Amino acid sequence: MIATKAYAAFDEETPLAPFNLDRREVGEHDVQIEINYCGVCHSDLHQVKNEWGGTMYPIVPGHEIVGKVTKVGSKVTKFKEGDLAGVGCFVDSCRTCPSCQEGLEQYCEVHNVGTYNSYELDKKTITYGGYSSQIVVDENYTLKVPANLDLARTAPLLCAGITTYSPIMQWKIGEGHRVGIVGLGGLGHMAVKIAAAKGANVTVLSTSPGKEQDAKELGAHNFAVTRDPEQLKSLRNSFDFIIDTVSAPHDYNLYLSMLKCDGTMILLGAPSEPSPMAGFSLIPKRRRIAGSMIGGIQETQEMLDFCAEHNIMSDIELISIKEINTAYDRMLQSDVKYRFVIDMATLND
Amino acid sequence: MIATKAYAAFDEETPLAPFNLDRREVGEHDVQIEINYCGVCHSDLHQVKNEWGGTMYPIVPGHEIVGKVTKVGSKVTKFKEGDLAGVGCFVDSCRTCPSCQEGLEQYCEVHNVGTYNSYELDKKTITYGGYSSQIVVDENYTLKVPANLDLARTAPLLCAGITTYSPIMQWKIGEGHRVGIVGLGGLGHMAVKIAAAKGANVTVLSTSPGKEQDAKELGAHNFAVTRDPEQLKSLRNSFDFIIDTVSAPHDYNLYLSMLKCDGTMILLGAPSEPSPMAGFSLIPKRRRIAGSMIGGIQETQEMLDFCAEHNIMSDIELISIKEINTAYDRMLQSDVKYRFVIDMATLND
Repeated sequence: MIATKAYAAFDEETPLAPFNLDRREVGEHDVQIEINYCGVCHSDLHQVKNEWGGTMYPIVPGHEIVGKVTKVGSKVTKFKEGDLAGVGCFVDSCRTCPSCQEGLEQYCEVHNVGTYNSYELDKKTITYGGYSSQIVVDENYTLKVPANLDLARTAPLLCAGITTYSPIMQWKIGEGHRVGIVGLGGLGHMAVKIAAAKGANVTVLSTSPGKEQDAKELGAHNFAVTRDPEQLKSLRNSFDFIIDTVSAPHDYNLYLSMLKCDGTMILLGAPSEPSPMAGFSLIPKRRRIAGSMIGGIQETQEMLDFCAEHNIMSDIELISIKEINTAYDRMLQSDVKYRFVIDMATLND
Repeated sequence: MIATKAYAAFDEETPLAPFNLDRREVGEHDVQIEINYCGVCHSDLHQVKNEWGGTMYPIVPGHEIVGKVTKVGSKVTKFKEGDLAGVGCFVDSCRTCPSCQEGLEQYCEVHNVGTYNSYELDKKTITYGGYSSQIVVDENYTLKVPANLDLARTAPLLCAGITTYSPIMQWKIGEGHRVGIVGLGGLGHMAVKIAAAKGANVTVLSTSPGKEQDAKELGAHNFAVTRDPEQLKSLRNSFDFIIDTVSAPHDYNLYLSMLKCDGTMILLGAPSEPSPMAGFSLIPKRRRIAGSMIGGIQETQEMLDFCAEHNIMSDIELISIKEINTAYDRMLQSDVKYRFVIDMATLND
C-alpha cells in the first residue's frame, strides 16, 4: 500500500483536519499521480456536511485533480512517468452497460465509482478524493492534461468545466444561439467562457447589478438584472438556451418564460428541495427543461483539448490546505471568484 | 351575414343554452361548413367556467369540428361544395412570423386566432366555436377529412388526435421505444392508439387497476398500477418517453423516475397550479420534460391521413346538444369513454 497524506472531515460538524490513508499498489492498468492542485467544488461541502445523506466518514473530498504521473502499471499505454494527468468526478464504472458503451460513464447503470465518498466496484473499498498527496487511478479514467494550460487553473475544468461543456455539446449550442446563464459561480463562469468560445451570444442573468463588469470580463456579451421588471419584459421569448447553474431553490418558471419556442433550459445545479414548475411554462411554446451531469471520459478529454486550444481556464483563488475550512465558509457566502484551488504541496508545510 | 344556430354559455354559472349568431359572408379564400359533429374537449369546460380567466361571454365552445362544405369563395382551391372538412383549435394566425413560416401556427408569435373565445386578426371580432350549425373559415386553416373515417368519431382527432400525434412526431416516437401513457381520457386514449400504430411498445400508467382491460382493448401492450410499490420499482428507468395527459396537479417526479437515461416526459395536460419538480429527477439521468400544444395545419392534415390509413378514430359517446350540460358534469368525473361528441343536427330538434 502507498502511504498518502490527506485532509478529511471526520463528522458533519468539526473542521477538516489531517488524515493518513493508504492508496492501493499500482495495478497493471493503473497510474499513480502526485497531486499538484485540487479544485474545491460545492459538492465537496455538501458531502462533508452530509447534506445529500449517506456520507461515509472520514471523507477526503476533491474531484478536480491535476498532477504528474509518478508510476505506471505494466499494461498502461496512455501515460508515462512525468506526464501531466487529471482526474475528475469518477474513477471507474461497470464498462459494459449501454451508458458506459456509449461513453456516458457518468450515467453508468450498474455503478459509477465516485472519486470520493463512494465504493469501488468491489462494493466495499471506500474511495478517497483529491485533498491528498497522491492517487492511484485506472488509466482509462485518467485524463491527459495539455501542457500549455496553467495547471492550477486547469483543476476546476475536471468538474466545473466538463459539467458545462457536456450540455453545450449535447444541445449543439453555438453560433446563432442566444444563451442565458443563470448563476455566476464556479459552474456559471465556465459556462460563460465555453459558450462564448463556441460562438454563442451569451447573456448573464443575475439578481445583482454589481456583477455586470465581471460578467463582461468573463466574455458575456450581455448582462440582465432579473429583478428589473422592464428588463424581464424584454427578455421574454428571447433565448434558445438557458444554462441554470444555481443550486439553491429558485423559480424555474421565471427563466422558462425567457425561452423562445422550442427553447431548452438546462439544469446543472440541483437544489436539495423541489421547486414549483408550471405546465403552462412549457406547453404553449413547446419549451423543455433538461438535466445534465458532468460528462464522460472521452468528452472530458475533448473538453480539456478544446480549452487548451482556446486558452480557457478557470478563474481561481489559490489556497493552502490549511485554509480549506475558511474557504468553505466563504464559498457558502459566494465569496469566491470563481473557484478555490488547493495547492497540494502545502500538505507538507 | 349568415344566421347561425348555436349553444352558448352566458356566464360562469348557468347552463349552456341556445344562442343565435352571425357568421361572416364567405370571403374569397373562405369555405362555409355545415357542422355535422363537434367533439367536447375539457378546455371547452375550462373556458366556459372561466377557469383560465379572460372568458368573453357569451362563449360558443367547440374546436373539434367536422362537416360538409356548403359554399366556397372565388379563390378557394383546396375545397369544393360537398367535400368533407374539419376545423381544429385555431382558425387563423399571422402567417409571417418564424413559427407560422415553419408550419407551427399554433405557436404564432403575433396572434394565433382560437376557434372560439378569441379575437380575429382584426383584434375586435370575437370567434365562436363548433357548438353551432355552421362556420366560415379560411381554407388554409381548414382540414380535408378522409372519406373512409366515421365522421362522428373523427371530430376528436382535430384536438385530442393532433395534440398527441404532434409530440409523437416531434420526438420520433416509434419502433424500439418503450412509451408510458399517463391518464386514459380523451388525450390518453388517442396517445395509446397513435403510439401503438407508430410501432412503440405502450404501457398505460394508471392509479386504478380497473382500467387494465380498457387499456389493452385500446392497443396498450402493458398496464401498470402506479400505486403499487412493487410495480413502481420495476418501472424505474424503463421508458424512453412518457406522455403525460393529466391536467389535474400531480407529482412529475414519480413519472420522471421511470424514464431511462436521456428519456423525455412530454406534458400535454396543463394543471392550473404548478407542481413541485426536483432537479435531482432530471440531472442524474440527463432526463427531460417537454411541453407540446396541439399541432400545425400541415401536421394536422398528416395526422388525419395517418389515422385514415391506420383506421384510427376516437372512441366516443354521441350526444345531442341538449345533453351538453350533463356531459360536462360527467366529464368532470371522468365518466366518459373517451370523448363526448355532439350530433349538431340536434340543434334543429
